[in-house]
Amino acid sequence: MSAPRAGAGASAHGRNPPPAARRRLPLPLLCLLLQGATAILFAVFVRYNHETDAALWHGGNHSNADNEFYFRYPSFQDVHTMVFVGFGFLMAFLQRYGFSSVGFTFLLAAFALQWSTLTQGFLHSFHGGHIHVGVESMINADFCAGAVLISFGAVLGKTGPAQLLLMALLEVALFGINEFVLLSLLGVKDAGGSMTIHTFGAYFGLVLSRVLYRPQLEKSKHRQGSIYHSDLFAMIGEACQGTIFLWIFWPSFNSAPTSLGDGQHRTVLNTYYSLTASTLSTFALSALVGRDGRLDMVHIQNAALAGGVVVGTASEMMLTPFGALAAGFLAGTVSTLGYKFFTPILESKFKVQDTCGVHNLHGMPGVLGALVGVLVTGLATHEAYGDGLQSVFPLIAESQRTATSQAMFQLFGLFVTLTLASVGGGVGGCLLKLPFLDAPPDSQCYEDRVYWEVPGEHEDEAQGPLKEEELDTQA
Amino acid sequence: MSAPRAGAGASAHGRNPPPAARRRLPLPLLCLLLQGATAILFAVFVRYNHETDAALWHGGNHSNADNEFYFRYPSFQDVHTMVFVGFGFLMAFLQRYGFSSVGFTFLLAAFALQWSTLTQGFLHSFHGGHIHVGVESMINADFCAGAVLISFGAVLGKTGPAQLLLMALLEVALFGINEFVLLSLLGVKDAGGSMTIHTFGAYFGLVLSRVLYRPQLEKSKHRQGSIYHSDLFAMIGEACQGTIFLWIFWPSFNSAPTSLGDGQHRTVLNTYYSLTASTLSTFALSALVGRDGRLDMVHIQNAALAGGVVVGTASEMMLTPFGALAAGFLAGTVSTLGYKFFTPILESKFKVQDTCGVHNLHGMPGVLGALVGVLVTGLATHEAYGDGLQSVFPLIAESQRTATSQAMFQLFGLFVTLTLASVGGGVGGCLLKLPFLDAPPDSQCYEDRVYWEVPGEHEDEAQGPLKEEELDTQA
Amino acid sequence: MSAPRAGAGASAHGRNPPPAARRRLPLPLLCLLLQGATAILFAVFVRYNHETDAALWHGGNHSNADNEFYFRYPSFQDVHTMVFVGFGFLMAFLQRYGFSSVGFTFLLAAFALQWSTLTQGFLHSFHGGHIHVGVESMINADFCAGAVLISFGAVLGKTGPAQLLLMALLEVALFGINEFVLLSLLGVKDAGGSMTIHTFGAYFGLVLSRVLYRPQLEKSKHRQGSIYHSDLFAMIGEACQGTIFLWIFWPSFNSAPTSLGDGQHRTVLNTYYSLTASTLSTFALSALVGRDGRLDMVHIQNAALAGGVVVGTASEMMLTPFGALAAGFLAGTVSTLGYKFFTPILESKFKVQDTCGVHNLHGMPGVLGALVGVLVTGLATHEAYGDGLQSVFPLIAESQRTATSQAMFQLFGLFVTLTLASVGGGVGGCLLKLPFLDAPPDSQCYEDRVYWEVPGEHEDEAQGPLKEEELDTQA
Repeated sequence: MSAPRAGAGASAHGRNPPPAARRRLPLPLLCLLLQGATAILFAVFVRYNHETDAALWHGGNHSNADNEFYFRYPSFQDVHTMVFVGFGFLMAFLQRYGFSSVGFTFLLAAFALQWSTLTQGFLHSFHGGHIHVGVESMINADFCAGAVLISFGAVLGKTGPAQLLLMALLEVALFGINEFVLLSLLGVKDAGGSMTIHTFGAYFGLVLSRVLYRPQLEKSKHRQGSIYHSDLFAMIGEACQGTIFLWIFWPSFNSAPTSLGDGQHRTVLNTYYSLTASTLSTFALSALVGRDGRLDMVHIQNAALAGGVVVGTASEMMLTPFGALAAGFLAGTVSTLGYKFFTPILESKFKVQDTCGVHNLHGMPGVLGALVGVLVTGLATHEAYGDGLQSVFPLIAESQRTATSQAMFQLFGLFVTLTLASVGGGVGGCLLKLPFLDAPPDSQCYEDRVYWEVPGEHEDEAQGPLKEEELDTQA
Repeated sequence: MSAPRAGAGASAHGRNPPPAARRRLPLPLLCLLLQGATAILFAVFVRYNHETDAALWHGGNHSNADNEFYFRYPSFQDVHTMVFVGFGFLMAFLQRYGFSSVGFTFLLAAFALQWSTLTQGFLHSFHGGHIHVGVESMINADFCAGAVLISFGAVLGKTGPAQLLLMALLEVALFGINEFVLLSLLGVKDAGGSMTIHTFGAYFGLVLSRVLYRPQLEKSKHRQGSIYHSDLFAMIGEACQGTIFLWIFWPSFNSAPTSLGDGQHRTVLNTYYSLTASTLSTFALSALVGRDGRLDMVHIQNAALAGGVVVGTASEMMLTPFGALAAGFLAGTVSTLGYKFFTPILESKFKVQDTCGVHNLHGMPGVLGALVGVLVTGLATHEAYGDGLQSVFPLIAESQRTATSQAMFQLFGLFVTLTLASVGGGVGGCLLKLPFLDAPPDSQCYEDRVYWEVPGEHEDEAQGPLKEEELDTQA
Repeated sequence: MSAPRAGAGASAHGRNPPPAARRRLPLPLLCLLLQGATAILFAVFVRYNHETDAALWHGGNHSNADNEFYFRYPSFQDVHTMVFVGFGFLMAFLQRYGFSSVGFTFLLAAFALQWSTLTQGFLHSFHGGHIHVGVESMINADFCAGAVLISFGAVLGKTGPAQLLLMALLEVALFGINEFVLLSLLGVKDAGGSMTIHTFGAYFGLVLSRVLYRPQLEKSKHRQGSIYHSDLFAMIGEACQGTIFLWIFWPSFNSAPTSLGDGQHRTVLNTYYSLTASTLSTFALSALVGRDGRLDMVHIQNAALAGGVVVGTASEMMLTPFGALAAGFLAGTVSTLGYKFFTPILESKFKVQDTCGVHNLHGMPGVLGALVGVLVTGLATHEAYGDGLQSVFPLIAESQRTATSQAMFQLFGLFVTLTLASVGGGVGGCLLKLPFLDAPPDSQCYEDRVYWEVPGEHEDEAQGPLKEEELDTQA
């Protein structure tokens, strides 16, 4: 594995360190600036909530078991694992971009957790001049970080860390606004985030990737391609692991914010069954469309997860176990066919370079999930939900809406999400073109060594001259 | 790592795509057929249980904390992680079979989860014309998937995915029947599945492997051997990870279905101590029998886990912490010696090609665990269990059985398990020989590229002619 | 990856197996001796506690939900995962020492869990002639194993397994004594173990490493260096994984032993925010001090975790979310600068060869965490804690101490910890020099094949003669 890296390891810093050094200042400055700003905002606004504060909690008359922490924390830990292990490693499939995939995931998520605590806090739990935080804040922050990482997947390899931090700054704010409009203003249900997380994150990233379109990257496409297809390790070792951790913890993801009791229980069950069906349909379709009927690991690693996305909205509803299987089967099918047939068109016709195929895993299944939510909402009856209607559809239970009108609101929520994501991604793309953010030149895309001290590099420098092709864009 | 793969990457499809394509149809057809069938059965029979259904749950008068979900879900998630991360990666030690090891684990487990929901549902929770599912269904389904993956370990590399799906179809049904006979008809205790999971899965797989014996595989034995011993990465990277996730979550595995309160607590503690002892005895024995006293990573990766298997039956009983240490120590010893001395005999004398050594990790420790259960059951007294006797041994508490007769029933349960597993494995082996299931020829065993698009292959085709040795069995 | 290993794979056993065999006896003998001794002590002293024993639990009048198991077990499982997956893989960065890093972690931790159950049991829960064990015993044992693994990090590659077991024997005992002095005698608060785990483990290991100083290892320093920097896989694949599992589960680590209700909730929240801040400051500082402003993965993998260490003492207190960010930011900064500037001095001036840089991740952040604890304790008021003061600072709540005197006790606790760790490490270092423990010669440091059957070795022997440089120290 060190061989190909070693062969291409030489870099330009030996000749022109000053520009390189100057080029790298944006990242530390932006980190310190953003951390300083959030720290000040935390000092002014953020306080423990009544379950977390020593005085407030003991002032009440609670049993320890009443603390919502104990119902939410196991799910939260699974969500946290998904965000960092799952998304991080799922993107670690590019052979020479592993440090960046995992490292920038880490950086983006850490910043998003702080920043979305503030943005979501202002929108959802601001009272008495303060944001009050507890286990729900952590779940919501991790959800928001998930959306940012989905967008990261669309621009993976073509953006520097300073650009990515700015993207996160914008996206976290818009994520909070979109969620607030859907959940609080429109009364839309979307516990597992088919709309607010997957659809939003995917289309924000795809439009952003469209704005940052690099026509010359076509030429190095074969490099991405060969990278993609030349390394067993990266795919099976890390990316498979990402897939499996996402797969096993997705029931916790969808159920983390749902109502306690039957709500969480049902959500878990629906997601579990949906994932088994998307796995089977992915294997079936991958073999059907594969060369000589052979399976493609990229399909398995991604499309098998579409079952989790597609029930993000409906899994807390009375979807029925059969409904979960059907939705999962559909999602696996659509996602696999997307990888096979639509991704090439997306780049050639729509000029969207979707590095990780987020359109197939999050975009289409997210929209599909919103539509499944519309359908299941429209079918909701007092009979099927009983007294549980209050916790799933409070506005229907209180007769403020009919099932049909609630379904229309759900559909409108999808429309709002697509609009905000597209506008946001467009604005974000323009922002990221600002010159001081130092986008990597085409020749340095998908390369760790632009941003990282990479093993084997020192030896390379000693061994041979720099390659011209790697210098021309640095001059 | 790409080097050896690249060197052997050429395949035959360039010359005879039609037969190759035809050969690959069984998998998608079987996937779609099985998924269609389970979906229909789900639609007709499967319903949410009273803790999962919105109307039923809210119809009762519960606090949310009463939902069994909250007591079982953290354990379930650990079990789920063990099945997918643990078993999947523990099998990923064959250098050129990594895609298949992880991928087919995924496929088999996903199907087994659906199918065992049905089979176990019909046997255990069928009333009012419906199967009622909740968190216990998921735990039981994952346990069943575990047994299927144990059997997969015995035939790893020598069976195609269509064969494996058929194996799962049969094994899941028999697993349910065996469990029903033991737990419901015979009143046997086996929470952690020393008998129902480990013994059953191991001997089903071993007998099946015996029926599928490939004498010519001996010749390519050195290939398996060299594969086995040529790659640091696969062993330490993925397989070690499988080991560690199995090790840390085994206490949850054994305790997941036990009675709430002291039952789960005690089971966890016993399993935890048993595993520490099997780890120490594995290190001691591996060094003692090793060449020049050196340790063998294969022993550590497998035998260290035998402590979890051996207390599968007894860990919910009053085994005592010392008893747990003693059982674990014994299991680690037996398992390590099995790898060193018995596995070679198993193949040469008994014609059983046990790829992963499941006889050492699941077979012998499973039988040993059943016997430990017989012993601890026979020693049960009203004094030691107090009022807790009702939840561990209800039939003894209700004076329907003496401790000795319960112990005899435990022993009979082991006999039933071994019989059903052997007969099932024999029948399964005959089924898997059906020609349309397309078993891989000897020369393509332990090779991913028969079933998967493998990185580096395209370049190979361009670079050189096909190797004759790889073509001869395809003609 | 097999290439460099294969090139250096020849070993001496072909010529002088008897001495090699003799050299390997200490490990099995020590394993069996220690396991036998702990088993006897378990038989005599260890019993289930009232929540784990069938008779005792059912004798009381409890709801199952009252069993502390359900509040502690999810956190425990995260701690268990951190100890085995986190510490184990974080140390797996040496290319030719991966088997040993992961394997010896496993061995040491398994022994430490048993032995610390006894030592901590005697000190903390010994009554009626017995040690009573339950979920708290497992948490405490895992904490102790964590300290042992931190010390292991300081001597990684330079000590054999028999030496390490002896180190664990001593360190576990001293860990128990130090913890007893701090928590029980001095009434110091240290839930997450900034002092008892991180400071103690780090300085015990560093002093021990000082006593075992190998001046000739300097020469092979470049080997360690080149090993360190020559392999992408080890770093990103395994070590990154160690980092991420530590990062996501650290909130559970710090909160596992705190008081139920608001205590655990607050601890989780503080640790979560502290880690986000240490991640951002690590990225900023790593780029600032890096060559050409590039990031160093070693900093990210380690310093990003310092935020968990630094709030080990204070996270259960009313640190405030801002305080958590500030502490985390400081810890990431100090730790990154330590790797860059202090580690080289530590070896050249202080003759401490700190293989994993535990001084930067556990030593300095641990001391810093103790000081943060002193500060936050000194600021404690009845107003801020309300009735919760009783559970965080019982001695202040009962007016036995003022906040200032409690803060002085905290400071004294740090002094006691540093003293005991240093004396213990010194004594331990002398013990480990005993000849029959068979320390590896300088030329075999950082080499798996001394202790393990290593893939590729057999072929090497057939292919070529032994290298002289590898034989000279074995003669």
